[in-house]
Amino acid sequence: MTSNLILLRHGESEWNAKNLFTGWVDVDLNDKGRAEARRGGELLAENDLLPDVLHTSLLTRAIHTAQIALDVVGRPWLPVRRSWRLNERHYGALQGKDKAATLAEFGEEQFMIWRRSYDTPPPAIEADAEYANFADPRYAALPPEARPATECLKDVLGRALPYWYDQIVPDLRDDKTVLVAAHGNSLRALVKHLDNVSDSDIVGLNIPTGIPLCYELDDDLRPVTAGGRYLDPEAAAASIEAVKNQGRK
Amino acid sequence: MTSNLILLRHGESEWNAKNLFTGWVDVDLNDKGRAEARRGGELLAENDLLPDVLHTSLLTRAIHTAQIALDVVGRPWLPVRRSWRLNERHYGALQGKDKAATLAEFGEEQFMIWRRSYDTPPPAIEADAEYANFADPRYAALPPEARPATECLKDVLGRALPYWYDQIVPDLRDDKTVLVAAHGNSLRALVKHLDNVSDSDIVGLNIPTGIPLCYELDDDLRPVTAGGRYLDPEAAAASIEAVKNQGRK
Repeated sequence: MTSNLILLRHGESEWNAKNLFTGWVDVDLNDKGRAEARRGGELLAENDLLPDVLHTSLLTRAIHTAQIALDVVGRPWLPVRRSWRLNERHYGALQGKDKAATLAEFGEEQFMIWRRSYDTPPPAIEADAEYANFADPRYAALPPEARPATECLKDVLGRALPYWYDQIVPDLRDDKTVLVAAHGNSLRALVKHLDNVSDSDIVGLNIPTGIPLCYELDDDLRPVTAGGRYLDPEAAAASIEAVKNQGRK
Repeated sequence: MTSNLILLRHGESEWNAKNLFTGWVDVDLNDKGRAEARRGGELLAENDLLPDVLHTSLLTRAIHTAQIALDVVGRPWLPVRRSWRLNERHYGALQGKDKAATLAEFGEEQFMIWRRSYDTPPPAIEADAEYANFADPRYAALPPEARPATECLKDVLGRALPYWYDQIVPDLRDDKTVLVAAHGNSLRALVKHLDNVSDSDIVGLNIPTGIPLCYELDDDLRPVTAGGRYLDPEAAAASIEAVKNQGRK
């Protein structure tokens, strides 16, 4: 028996377009991002891949992406669970900073370490920083020591895996087609786990926005086809190139 | 200690505007309905009544009402549970029929019995009727005998109460402010239970669309103030009058 997992990265947000580090800052989709979400829903419908259950982060851009895509497939009524464990990587002190300015100020090497190193997080955000949002009610139930002030991808994997095992896996075992609407780095973490991507290879792996990435999983919940399958492979390839060039305006 | 319960009836749908019996037919909001949902969210924000958790039916018009209102209050990330037990009353064979034509065909007495009698359901819908939708995937997990083919308000109360006790009450006991986004009749059923409205008095009780109805509940989960409190009492009174005149075009 195989299970179906669909990963959907949210489309462009108001800050993606401005080239700012976003992380846990709750920026909404812009018009282009909403169009990407609709396209994501259309690809699901065209491929007859109708999700039975939805998992999202606690961030509006992922939640809206899922709502738009599910409206397109006529399934706004899906059961949904949300968790901070699917949130984007916390970008620490970089949150709210311009990517190009950060690159210019700190240089290519430091910039790429912060953006892509597997295990080196940026400096922690100060509790009173403009974009720290430690008082955000959506995280109020989380004791302070459990709430990140910065994260590297390794940290994201560490906090996403418990959610994978405890909340997503049971739905897959239940023979449901599972949609996970989330973020570049929380999805990279899941892909790293699923495809057993090495710590060095994951650095070069990008996930395009708005194009469903579908995994058929075997009884051990490992991919039948390594790397899964994008529902629009050509657009995916083009988008991966574009993401690689972020910050190089 | 008191708990806060907010009831929100969805705004105008494409079929409300056409004066058709809707019931379990999954008709979306129209522009007026979306504006009503936004106004509902604004009233919550103005009154600083921010929900901590959301319960909806499985019908798009209630789901979208909640999504729009929660966007307005900046809480699209709320945990949400949905159930057919909060659905609108199943209108049986009347689903899809014109209200004014039904009134003209069957006369005022029969019409009012079907619309408002507490314990007399309309004729059951045939399984192959256009608006039966027995194959709808959102109800696929429900064995056929549990799925209504018609309902009176008493039936709605019977299927809504288990959800009230099992899903909503635990959230209220947990000191959460609970938002229930649902329908004219599923909300009338909850109000009948909360306020101990008699079988005869409930016939004349209407709940306006898009205006949050807030109950402060005591330790026995009974209203501190009978009938609760509409966040816009004047608009509520005007709307109640308009609902009373439905079907009398």
